[in-house]
Amino acid sequence: MDRSRRVRLLPLLAALLAAAAGAAEPAAADAPDRPKTTQELLDASLPTDWRRPDPGNTLYMELEGGRVVIELAPDFAPAHVANIRTLARQGFWDGLTIYRSQDNFVVQFGDLVDEGGTPRPLGDAKPALPAEFSRPAEGLAFHALPDRDGWAPQTGFAAGFPAARDPAAGQAWMAHCYGTLGAGRDAAPDSSTGAELYVVTGQSPRQLDRNITQVGRVLHGMELLSVVPRGTGPLGFHEDAAKRVPIRAVRLASEVPEAERTDLQVLRTDTPLFDAVVESRRNRRDGWYVQPAGHIDLCNITVPVRIAD
Amino acid sequence: MDRSRRVRLLPLLAALLAAAAGAAEPAAADAPDRPKTTQELLDASLPTDWRRPDPGNTLYMELEGGRVVIELAPDFAPAHVANIRTLARQGFWDGLTIYRSQDNFVVQFGDLVDEGGTPRPLGDAKPALPAEFSRPAEGLAFHALPDRDGWAPQTGFAAGFPAARDPAAGQAWMAHCYGTLGAGRDAAPDSSTGAELYVVTGQSPRQLDRNITQVGRVLHGMELLSVVPRGTGPLGFHEDAAKRVPIRAVRLASEVPEAERTDLQVLRTDTPLFDAVVESRRNRRDGWYVQPAGHIDLCNITVPVRIAD
Repeated sequence: MDRSRRVRLLPLLAALLAAAAGAAEPAAADAPDRPKTTQELLDASLPTDWRRPDPGNTLYMELEGGRVVIELAPDFAPAHVANIRTLARQGFWDGLTIYRSQDNFVVQFGDLVDEGGTPRPLGDAKPALPAEFSRPAEGLAFHALPDRDGWAPQTGFAAGFPAARDPAAGQAWMAHCYGTLGAGRDAAPDSSTGAELYVVTGQSPRQLDRNITQVGRVLHGMELLSVVPRGTGPLGFHEDAAKRVPIRAVRLASEVPEAERTDLQVLRTDTPLFDAVVESRRNRRDGWYVQPAGHIDLCNITVPVRIAD
Repeated sequence: MDRSRRVRLLPLLAALLAAAAGAAEPAAADAPDRPKTTQELLDASLPTDWRRPDPGNTLYMELEGGRVVIELAPDFAPAHVANIRTLARQGFWDGLTIYRSQDNFVVQFGDLVDEGGTPRPLGDAKPALPAEFSRPAEGLAFHALPDRDGWAPQTGFAAGFPAARDPAAGQAWMAHCYGTLGAGRDAAPDSSTGAELYVVTGQSPRQLDRNITQVGRVLHGMELLSVVPRGTGPLGFHEDAAKRVPIRAVRLASEVPEAERTDLQVLRTDTPLFDAVVESRRNRRDGWYVQPAGHIDLCNITVPVRIAD
């Protein structure tokens, strides 16, 4: 009994391990020429299969629990990214809070102006920006997935971000997947400044695609945002200021001394290796799965990220 | 500035509100005959549009932070649900822990046997059960969605649960969406007992469909599970026992005095009202959206749940 209970638990790990994006899968010992598992593929990767995000397009959000690393997406939202860079240089978010956490949806941070409060000035940042919901598909290298998607004619990866494309309309846009960073806006499409930001912490809200400007994606430290206790006010707002999560600082990595940077490497999404990694998730070949899905949704693909030695 | 900043924030709420499943959407004042919003539809619902889950198929998981209410799915996993009922009656999970929390995937609870530990006996529960990954489609009322899905030929709702169906194979199964309760298993498909359970807290891991037995879904209190700090061990296991979340008790609602029950009502999923609610999520018609999606994925549909007055 004791032993069997242990055994039952262990392969359960393997099972969930096999299901965990980017995680190692148990090898089927009796299949020497089987397709490689995700971990085997990553173990065999070359340095050229990985990229280092540009420190000038990388944000460090410093929380009490640690650092959240965010890659900005100038290829999709150049005006917003420029404003966010300016706001970060000014320390706009320093001392502000994550004031909202709505279960299975988003956390939101920025300058929540309580009644009678005075908003923090935007300084050199622009008070108004054009909407950047989508961009011309032309000029954007798009690595398409063969898998069907209900939300868009095509999905895939562009500039390392999960993205979608409409060849007929000639437009491309980022897709709202877990970890997406977006810029809150008013009823007017062009009313976002990048000062109020949200991060997706729940089931991919793809209905927001092409309705709001996405500015980047969390590469590291999502577990610091995803566990923020849900607010008890409407929409998950923390009406009790004491429940809001303080933001120590948000900085551009390029403005942080090199010795204090997090040296992340992100798997390139335009390589044969990446295609093989996606296939290893589309059809799990380890011993545990009895029914490989034969399909994967864009937002079920986690792009592997590692910290350089 | 002050005012504009306030204004910018408010519709942002409306915007995210519109995107929040089941949440009220702002009315477009100048469109008297526009399609109704989700909230307007729910406000106009009749008592017959709602159902009360069977207390004999409802679990209360009591945590320090409050109660998680789970509906069991005997239509999909009768043998596992029977075992789970037996285990709950025996207080099997009382004093055990949520010992695993893996970001964007699952929390897992049950009897984690540490080295040298003695597992808790299953008592009257069966030590072995048949795999219940899917069931014959025949005899199961299936309310299909028109929306395309990449994982299954058909998706929809059955017995109130998000489900999928393969008419050619004549099989139906529950779909792994946020809040799904599943039974961990060993490498052998028939090795789960229902003693070790997991709840999906991340992006719908549909690749698990038809590979593991799903036994129910969390109806209320997900925010107590979704914020469990992520484990720092492999697969999100909490190697430090002090970090595991104690389970005070897991009881069948039918064994809890009526005065202590949570009187939940769940929107029926086989009604014209439900179709209208789904359509109100498929195509957001409030003033904020500039591009209604015209589509919704099964796991983006949150079945409204309310506590009876």
